[in-house]
Amino acid sequence: MHAFINNLINSDFSYMLFIAIILLSTKFLGLVTMKFRMPQVVGALIAGFILGPAVLNLVRDTDLISSLAEIGVIVLMFCAGLETDLNEMKKTGAASFVIALIGVLLPLAGGFGVAYFANSDPDLILHDVFIGIILTATSVSITVETLKELGKLNSHAGNAILGAAIIDDVLGIIGLTIVMSLADSSVSILIVLLKIIAFFIFAVIACYLFRKLYSKWTSRTEKDLRRYSITAFAFCLLLSFCAEFFFGVADITGAYIAGLAIAKTSKTEYVTKKFDTLSYLLLSPIFFASIGLKVNFSGMTSTIWIFAIVLTLVAIITKILGCGLGAKLFRFTTKESLQIGIGMISRGEVALIVASKGEKMGLMPPQYFGPVVLMVIVTTIITPVLLKIVFKDRRAGGGSAAFGKLA
Amino acid sequence: MHAFINNLINSDFSYMLFIAIILLSTKFLGLVTMKFRMPQVVGALIAGFILGPAVLNLVRDTDLISSLAEIGVIVLMFCAGLETDLNEMKKTGAASFVIALIGVLLPLAGGFGVAYFANSDPDLILHDVFIGIILTATSVSITVETLKELGKLNSHAGNAILGAAIIDDVLGIIGLTIVMSLADSSVSILIVLLKIIAFFIFAVIACYLFRKLYSKWTSRTEKDLRRYSITAFAFCLLLSFCAEFFFGVADITGAYIAGLAIAKTSKTEYVTKKFDTLSYLLLSPIFFASIGLKVNFSGMTSTIWIFAIVLTLVAIITKILGCGLGAKLFRFTTKESLQIGIGMISRGEVALIVASKGEKMGLMPPQYFGPVVLMVIVTTIITPVLLKIVFKDRRAGGGSAAFGKLA
Repeated sequence: MHAFINNLINSDFSYMLFIAIILLSTKFLGLVTMKFRMPQVVGALIAGFILGPAVLNLVRDTDLISSLAEIGVIVLMFCAGLETDLNEMKKTGAASFVIALIGVLLPLAGGFGVAYFANSDPDLILHDVFIGIILTATSVSITVETLKELGKLNSHAGNAILGAAIIDDVLGIIGLTIVMSLADSSVSILIVLLKIIAFFIFAVIACYLFRKLYSKWTSRTEKDLRRYSITAFAFCLLLSFCAEFFFGVADITGAYIAGLAIAKTSKTEYVTKKFDTLSYLLLSPIFFASIGLKVNFSGMTSTIWIFAIVLTLVAIITKILGCGLGAKLFRFTTKESLQIGIGMISRGEVALIVASKGEKMGLMPPQYFGPVVLMVIVTTIITPVLLKIVFKDRRAGGGSAAFGKLA
Repeated sequence: MHAFINNLINSDFSYMLFIAIILLSTKFLGLVTMKFRMPQVVGALIAGFILGPAVLNLVRDTDLISSLAEIGVIVLMFCAGLETDLNEMKKTGAASFVIALIGVLLPLAGGFGVAYFANSDPDLILHDVFIGIILTATSVSITVETLKELGKLNSHAGNAILGAAIIDDVLGIIGLTIVMSLADSSVSILIVLLKIIAFFIFAVIACYLFRKLYSKWTSRTEKDLRRYSITAFAFCLLLSFCAEFFFGVADITGAYIAGLAIAKTSKTEYVTKKFDTLSYLLLSPIFFASIGLKVNFSGMTSTIWIFAIVLTLVAIITKILGCGLGAKLFRFTTKESLQIGIGMISRGEVALIVASKGEKMGLMPPQYFGPVVLMVIVTTIITPVLLKIVFKDRRAGGGSAAFGKLA
C-alpha cells in the first residue's frame, strides 16, 4: 500500500493528481469552513496543511506547484489592484504610510527581543535583528481574499490596509537590505534605496502611458474582447518581472500596481471577471494550498516549539498594536483601527522568502525555519477568522472572491 | 547586449517574462494570420517557432512551460469533449474506425518505406518500422481548435475526425507497443492490449457513474456555480492521470472522454465558458507556442534535410489518402472525405513523445529527431490552412475558439 502510494506521487504524471486533489480538497474544506462561518480561504490553507508533510504527506510542493502558486499570487494581487478605488486610496495615503511604518517598527523590535532572549551569543546580534525583519512583512493576499469574500475590499479600512501593505512591503525590503548589506559588503544600502525609488518612478510612468493607450484602444470596440484580457495580463507579468529583475522589488507589488493602472476603464469589469475565473479555477487554490504544503514539524525540539509559540504571539500582537496605533493617530475609529491592525497580521510567502534568503546567507540558523513557518501558518489562518469577526455587521457578505460567492 | 539578454532569460523570474512574451506574440501573430484569412492557431505556432531556438532563441522550453502546455492540451481536449454531440458521434462510429485504421496503416507503410530507402543496414529494419510508427499518430488538438474557430466542430466531418483521432490514438499506442515489445522483452503486447481494453471499460463505468451524480448535483441550484467547474476539472485531471498511470493510455484521451461525460448537462454551457477562459488567457497560447519552441535546426546535414522533406511529404499524402479512402468507403462525399483526410494530417506532441521514447530506447538514431520535428511543425501549420480552404462555404466563421472569435 505504502509502495503503491509512493509510485502514485512520484510518477511523471502525478502533477495531474496533485492539482485534482488540491482543487477538490480546497473547495471541500472551503465549504466546510464556510458552514462554520469562516472564510473559505481558511479551508484552503488547512487543505494544504493536511495534504502536506505535516499530516498526510500526499502532495509534494513541486517546482510546478510553486510556480503556479507564484503566478496565482500575482493574479490575486493584480485583481486587487483592478478593484482598488484610487481616489479612495489617495485619501488614506498619509494614514497608510504611518500605519505601515509603526506596523513595521513594532514587530521588528518584538522579533529582535524574542530572538535576543533565546540567543545567548552577543556576537550574533545581527541574527536577532534578522528575526525581527522576518516579522515585518505583511502578506496582504490572504486579507485581500478575505475582504473580497466579505465584500469589504473597498471600505475605508480596506483601502488603508491595501495602501499600508504596499508601503510595508517596501519598508520590509529596505529593512532586509540594510541587514544584508551589514552582513555582506557586496550589497549597498544607498543603491538599494535608489533602486526602490527608481522602481516607483518607472512604474508610475509605465502605468500612465499604458493606461492612456489601453483606455483609448479598449474603448474602440465591444467585439473580440479577449485581446484586452490577454494584453492586460501580459502588462501585469511584465511589470512584475521588471520589479523583481531590475529593481529588486517584490513581483506582487508590480502586479498590484499594474492592476491599479487598468482599474476603472470601460473594460475593467470584463477583464476582472476573466481573471477571477483564471484564479478560482486553477491558480488560487494552488497558491493557498501551497502555503500549507510548506509546513513540516519533524525535528523540532521543545525549546524550539516554545520559541515558535512566543514568536507567533509577538508577531500577532505587535502588528495589531503597531498598525492599530497608526490608524488611531489618523482618527480612524477604534473598530476600524482594530480592523486595520488585524488585516495586517498575516505573514505569508514574503516572510518565507526572506527567511530562506537569510538561511542561505547564514543570517538565520536552520532550526529557526520551523518556527518561522509556524508563525506564517498561524498568522495566515488567524487573520481571516479574526477579520470576519471584526468586520461583522448587519449585511450578509457579498463580493466576488476567488473562492466563490457565499451560497 | 548579448550578456544582458542572457541574464534576462536565465533569471529566477524569467518565467513571467516568457509567459508575457508568449501571450503577446501568439495573440499578435494570431491576429496577423487572421488578416490573411488563416486560423489564429497558425500565428500562435509561428510565434513559438520565432521565439524558440530556430530563430530568436529568446524563450526557453522550461519545465514550467512544458507542464503548462501539457495542462493546456488536457483542457483543450476536455473542452472538445464537452462540445461533442455523442449521438452524432455514434452515427459516425464505424466510419471513424475504418478512417482511423486505413489512416494509420498507410502512413506506417509510407514512413517505413522512406526510412528503408534512407537506411542501408538490413539489420535495422525495426528502426525503419519505428519511423513508420511515428507517422501514425494524429494530433487532433490543432484540428479541434481550427474547427472551433470555423464553427465546424459539430459537423458530420468534424465528428468523424474526432472519433477517428481517438481510435487513431489507440491504434498508435498499440503500434508503438508492438515495436517496443519486439525491441525489449519486458513489454508484452498482450498485456498492453488488455490494459487498453481495461482502460475503456474503466472509463465508461467511471463516466457513467460520475455523469449520474454530477447531473443530479448540478440540477439542484443555480447559485454558487464555481464548485461545478472545479469538480468537472478535477474529474478531467483524475481521468487523465488514470489513463497514463494505470493503463498507459495518453492523458489527452482521458481528458476527452471526461469531457464527453459532462457534455449536455444543464451546467455544461457554463462550465465550457469557464474552461474557454482558462484556456485562452493562459494555457492554450503556451501549448501552441511550446510546439514551435521545440524546433532546432542546428546540425542538420543536407542528406538529413532531404530525408526530412520526403518524410514530411509522405506524412501528409499518406494521411490524406488513407483517411480520405476510409471516409469514401463509408459514403462520405468527396469534399467531406477530403476534409476528413486533411483534418487528420497534423502530428503534434504525440509524435514528439513517441520519437523521444524511441530515441531513449535506441530505436531511432538521434539525427532523425530534427526531421521528425520538422514533419510535426509543417503538418501542424499546414492543417489549419488547408482546413480553412476545404471548409470554406458561404457562411462566415463563428464558434468560440480558444483564440478568440473572429472580429
